[in-house]
Amino acid sequence: MDPIRIAIVGVGKIARDQHIPAINGNSAFSLAATVSPHHHGPEGIPHFASLEDLIENGPAVDAVALCTPPQVRYDLAALALAKGMHVFLEKPPGATLAEVAALESRANKVGATLFASWHSRFAAGVAPARAWLAERTVKSAKIIWREDVRVWHPGQAWIWEPGGLGVFDPGINALSIATHILPRPFFLRTATLEIPANRAAPIAADIEFRDTAGATIHMDLDWRQTGPQSWDIIVETDAGTLKLSQGGAVLTLPTGTEHNEDMEYPGLYARFANLIRGGRSDADIAPLRLVADAFLRGNRQTVEAFHD
Amino acid sequence: MDPIRIAIVGVGKIARDQHIPAINGNSAFSLAATVSPHHHGPEGIPHFASLEDLIENGPAVDAVALCTPPQVRYDLAALALAKGMHVFLEKPPGATLAEVAALESRANKVGATLFASWHSRFAAGVAPARAWLAERTVKSAKIIWREDVRVWHPGQAWIWEPGGLGVFDPGINALSIATHILPRPFFLRTATLEIPANRAAPIAADIEFRDTAGATIHMDLDWRQTGPQSWDIIVETDAGTLKLSQGGAVLTLPTGTEHNEDMEYPGLYARFANLIRGGRSDADIAPLRLVADAFLRGNRQTVEAFHD
Repeated sequence: MDPIRIAIVGVGKIARDQHIPAINGNSAFSLAATVSPHHHGPEGIPHFASLEDLIENGPAVDAVALCTPPQVRYDLAALALAKGMHVFLEKPPGATLAEVAALESRANKVGATLFASWHSRFAAGVAPARAWLAERTVKSAKIIWREDVRVWHPGQAWIWEPGGLGVFDPGINALSIATHILPRPFFLRTATLEIPANRAAPIAADIEFRDTAGATIHMDLDWRQTGPQSWDIIVETDAGTLKLSQGGAVLTLPTGTEHNEDMEYPGLYARFANLIRGGRSDADIAPLRLVADAFLRGNRQTVEAFHD
Repeated sequence: MDPIRIAIVGVGKIARDQHIPAINGNSAFSLAATVSPHHHGPEGIPHFASLEDLIENGPAVDAVALCTPPQVRYDLAALALAKGMHVFLEKPPGATLAEVAALESRANKVGATLFASWHSRFAAGVAPARAWLAERTVKSAKIIWREDVRVWHPGQAWIWEPGGLGVFDPGINALSIATHILPRPFFLRTATLEIPANRAAPIAADIEFRDTAGATIHMDLDWRQTGPQSWDIIVETDAGTLKLSQGGAVLTLPTGTEHNEDMEYPGLYARFANLIRGGRSDADIAPLRLVADAFLRGNRQTVEAFHD
């Protein structure tokens, strides 16, 4: 089979660190072009200032990976789908739920693949965690995602603006894992969002979810964590405790701990190739829907101003 | 065919004014019981303090209509579905999007009907508006929903609490019509929510949506309107202007104005009976999804405190 000719749109840090190496490492793809008004891609790969420019003047491409901020992703995705291209969306898949639903329906109409990617679902411990939990009864779960925003998002003003997700930017990774590994759907019961006095988005959140069998899932998100950072999901079951730590990389079961190699972006691109070859889409919005529910239902508290 | 034996759960104003007369007026249904810890239903109809009590001690019922506030609706719906009953949800269908999705999936599993009702979609002008627009190209639309909260929601503190929708409580009716009559999907681009200094929910909102062909849909919601009230949707098309006014009751087309009889709740119950007879569900969450997107993305402004 000929490789899928793919263009990267948005050549920022995530594209350079993750997407380009994953594409280069997967023979199902060939990197056909890069698109960005700001940054060039790798030497020798045709580069365009805009997707329109690529479409008019560039080489033929079968697919695009959209690595731009979510606010501008809809227009790019709609244009690519209108040209029959397959679309890989970085997380979160859009700025709103309704635009992702519109893209999914458009993709189905034109017969193209839309892939809403959630990279944390491809962390090493996630697939075995899901398999283990599928045969257990979940009694309760805790999600503890506490990191230092000054380390991970230094000076990123947009993340605090309306439409930026604040602490849900990392928190949505936790939700993408939890919605994938927990065997029953869950939904929000109560939420408190802590908003710095000088910002629009939360710096911390305390959420209680419940699954359809009544089990409680508690989520503790905090961007003010100095010292050791926590990206842990702990699930109590009828067969003992499961712990996923380091953002899904390390899995501890009652039988011991597994450390496996990080395969997040290679895993995403393998999945994207499978979806394209199978003529299917995967636009699961469950993690973003839970975040929207938190904004819809949450109790907002104003806390100390945050300065970078 | 035997009538569908239905119980009303939550015997408040909406149940007495709308649901009970609509059920009594439709021979497909028979009112089998009422449930409320607070209020009795009509004379001669068996009454129970809780749904559990009805299930244990009451007559057999095939369906329930949930007329309680949305915050407690999930548990009632899940219990009813677990017993194989069909479920009619007042609007909005739940307190969160995820819980409605969980109910829909449960209903499909047990083979029961779940109906997320949007009464404004059955206002007299809505069906002909939808039919007329299906053959036109929409250039732009305006939704103007301005009413006096002191008249329509006097002293209803819960509507201002976190999880109460504020001005989106009436605004979601407008969105239920717009998502039904406009031929293309639309999604939020920008939103400003005005929150009174002493409340948690918006008293006004200014939203710009865009449809998938690029047409702008502007929504103006305000709960501070004294004097004449506005519940209007105006759509500019290639064949002239459509105006739905009085919440969908009155339709004005380039050819003239139609006044028809209000059939909202009779229309809802006719639809519910059809869904049950056809073994189908209708749990469209598009209106609530747009509201969640507004809370997720909206720019919040603090405005003057509101006192009843």
